[in-house]
Amino acid sequence: MNDQVKYVLDESRLPEAWYNIAADLPSPPPPVLHPGTGQPVGPDDLAPLFPMQIILQEVSTDRFVAIPEEVRSVYRQWRPTPLFRARRLERHLDTPARIYYKYEGVSPTGSHKPNTAVAQAYYNKAEGAKRLTTETGAGQWGSSLAFAGRVFGLEVDVFMVRVSYEQKPYRRALMETFGARCVPSPSEETNAGRAILAEHPDSTGSLGIAISEAVEAAAPREDTKYSLGSVLNHVLMHQTVIGEEAQQQLEQAEDYPDVLIGCTGGGSNFSGLVNPFIGRALREEASIRVIAVEPAACPSLTKGQYAFDFGDTGHLTPLVKMHTLGSTFVPPPFHAGGLRYHGMAPLVSHLKELGLIEARAYTQTEVFAAGVEFAQVEGIVPAPEANHAVKATIDEAVRCREEGVSQSILFNLCGHGHFDMQAYTDFFAGKLEDHAYSEDEVAMALAGLPTVAA
Amino acid sequence: MNDQVKYVLDESRLPEAWYNIAADLPSPPPPVLHPGTGQPVGPDDLAPLFPMQIILQEVSTDRFVAIPEEVRSVYRQWRPTPLFRARRLERHLDTPARIYYKYEGVSPTGSHKPNTAVAQAYYNKAEGAKRLTTETGAGQWGSSLAFAGRVFGLEVDVFMVRVSYEQKPYRRALMETFGARCVPSPSEETNAGRAILAEHPDSTGSLGIAISEAVEAAAPREDTKYSLGSVLNHVLMHQTVIGEEAQQQLEQAEDYPDVLIGCTGGGSNFSGLVNPFIGRALREEASIRVIAVEPAACPSLTKGQYAFDFGDTGHLTPLVKMHTLGSTFVPPPFHAGGLRYHGMAPLVSHLKELGLIEARAYTQTEVFAAGVEFAQVEGIVPAPEANHAVKATIDEAVRCREEGVSQSILFNLCGHGHFDMQAYTDFFAGKLEDHAYSEDEVAMALAGLPTVAA
Repeated sequence: MNDQVKYVLDESRLPEAWYNIAADLPSPPPPVLHPGTGQPVGPDDLAPLFPMQIILQEVSTDRFVAIPEEVRSVYRQWRPTPLFRARRLERHLDTPARIYYKYEGVSPTGSHKPNTAVAQAYYNKAEGAKRLTTETGAGQWGSSLAFAGRVFGLEVDVFMVRVSYEQKPYRRALMETFGARCVPSPSEETNAGRAILAEHPDSTGSLGIAISEAVEAAAPREDTKYSLGSVLNHVLMHQTVIGEEAQQQLEQAEDYPDVLIGCTGGGSNFSGLVNPFIGRALREEASIRVIAVEPAACPSLTKGQYAFDFGDTGHLTPLVKMHTLGSTFVPPPFHAGGLRYHGMAPLVSHLKELGLIEARAYTQTEVFAAGVEFAQVEGIVPAPEANHAVKATIDEAVRCREEGVSQSILFNLCGHGHFDMQAYTDFFAGKLEDHAYSEDEVAMALAGLPTVAA
Repeated sequence: MNDQVKYVLDESRLPEAWYNIAADLPSPPPPVLHPGTGQPVGPDDLAPLFPMQIILQEVSTDRFVAIPEEVRSVYRQWRPTPLFRARRLERHLDTPARIYYKYEGVSPTGSHKPNTAVAQAYYNKAEGAKRLTTETGAGQWGSSLAFAGRVFGLEVDVFMVRVSYEQKPYRRALMETFGARCVPSPSEETNAGRAILAEHPDSTGSLGIAISEAVEAAAPREDTKYSLGSVLNHVLMHQTVIGEEAQQQLEQAEDYPDVLIGCTGGGSNFSGLVNPFIGRALREEASIRVIAVEPAACPSLTKGQYAFDFGDTGHLTPLVKMHTLGSTFVPPPFHAGGLRYHGMAPLVSHLKELGLIEARAYTQTEVFAAGVEFAQVEGIVPAPEANHAVKATIDEAVRCREEGVSQSILFNLCGHGHFDMQAYTDFFAGKLEDHAYSEDEVAMALAGLPTVAA
């Protein structure tokens, strides 16, 4: 028996190109629309916010996009990341399933986010930007852009969702250690923030609001660009190094997954793992089960509507077609701050519509119980977001046991929970509240959807 | 030019044996003495506290001790750990030095401590223990024994130095996530703890006090043994996988260190890195510079006396000859909780007396400044303890620049600082206090040394 538990790749095996699923889709996703005209946006519409190389990647249909050597040289600090066989978890669950996980927690900030942060900082620097603005939920993204900005000599301003700013002071400290400026959102620094505060002085914030603030802070300034940590095509593409490495590592293991699992907030860690596998299945006309897992308190994929909507609450962004709970939706406070987005990446939504992926939702108490179970047998404490993937993996492994089938399951352990121990403390104290999203709430949030001719 | 930044080893290169420097020393360290008789202790004296395999390792003079396969299979989850070439730091410092660091922060608890925790839990389980007691300072050790105990099905009770228990709630949460029970020390659970509290109700605790409590809680119970996270010979030996791997990785890099650097509290991460190199230098009659770095507020190696002393404050342990500040010394609160021990490993002290290592001390503000500098260029936030090694490394690299010599420097980055962000927050706020230990304090602390015929 191959008793190996960890599959490592020499840095010579670091991918040389990102994989772009647009090349293999049976139909393209709907275009991004200008909110004023209802017409598809062009590169010029996006130029105030993004460097041209990023804009071209956003609309590229090339199957592979070369990773600049400057980006690969930073990746090499922590990539390739390890792929683990969860043998202790398999024994603990008494399952015939073979469970693997790709572990992105070894990055400088403990999550998958630097994969795109480094690329975005590089392209912005190359095209002359001096400063980046962005939003962050739990702080994984903000700290990653802070790190990447520092590497390439860019200033970074982070609008952090206020509830996370208050609940997670240590991720804020991490951003500040990397030299970034961190602003609780909604803030008094932007029109969008002031408008929210005027109406809701106690607003706990949301990713949608923080995006509005970061976009507003960047757009008018020539030397300042905006960076987004998820949702957009180029962001998802930058994450595909995860799945590309996993494919090489599973070759070492002489195995191939029957089931792929990832948690979904905006959709980037999920896509980073699964897109190379889905692309291969499409090219080979093979089938593979792919499960997106989201919080029951913010269930865009499972309960949202597939419609054109704004990416932000202040309606400064173009319209994208996605599974959405409505751009004004503010999810209740829960600990997986990285999954508190009202919409879903258009590419992930498109895959869902094409029937290429499934989706399910869990409440936070059950995902933390799964996370503690995983930590106790595997020794890694997952981030609250990753616990959603852990929960689905355990459920699938139990299904394998009940059905007596030995399937191979691969999930993305997209980050560690070292900065989230307060959430674990709350879980042990029985203090986690579960908010399952009701049909009434869905209807109310969707009532504000923009009308577009699509 | 070899532009590699990370040297990884396949798990087939995981060491098969620990290295025991006792085999190569020009003279053996002094024996451990029974405090009552002043005579060397025998295995029977230690049997109430430790399993026999551990006791035999403590006195072994074999050069290599085989690592049980059960231990290696747990090591394989995170070992071999990466060795990094700090190219961005070299450029930042404009130094001709080649800087390498071995990174132990990838372990389940983020430090080097599981290397011995897993071994100790294994031997205790093999000899029938049901429960382990231990002390912890900053919590690296306690969380590591909690993890290892869980893997082998042992209960773990951790006496945590009170100041760290209060300052570092998230390491406590980590211990509890792994299923351990965590008690602030001094506590009401032991005679030793109650005696301290009677005299000093506000005691912030010390490792010496916590050791007394853990020893007292273990000694009378047949099914309960005691585990120590540093200081003892077997603990230092279990850590030598660090240096053994580093030797293989430097072969890949086609380099060899001129200078080795580690921080020292009890001495285990330092010894784990340096002992295999010192042993090789002794066998080959070569020379190598080795620098132990400690906090100026707890300067056992630089200001302590080399004398027989108790390992704990309650005087329950045997007497060991070491550099000590006196067993009743309670260091002022500072953030490198793992370096707050009054003594030093007898083996490290012996190396110092033999002239095989140097020692230096730094205040905490200067080590945090070095840590932030390192984090900003290398992307890894070091633990406060590790910042001591970072500071000495930067100083040595600057010396290389000033002297115009291209030396190779290797230091042990023994853990990450994800659980220590409060310390960084305090540093940024200018709130860190520097306590340099005065000659008067030295004299006072040493006044209580036991009298032994040595």
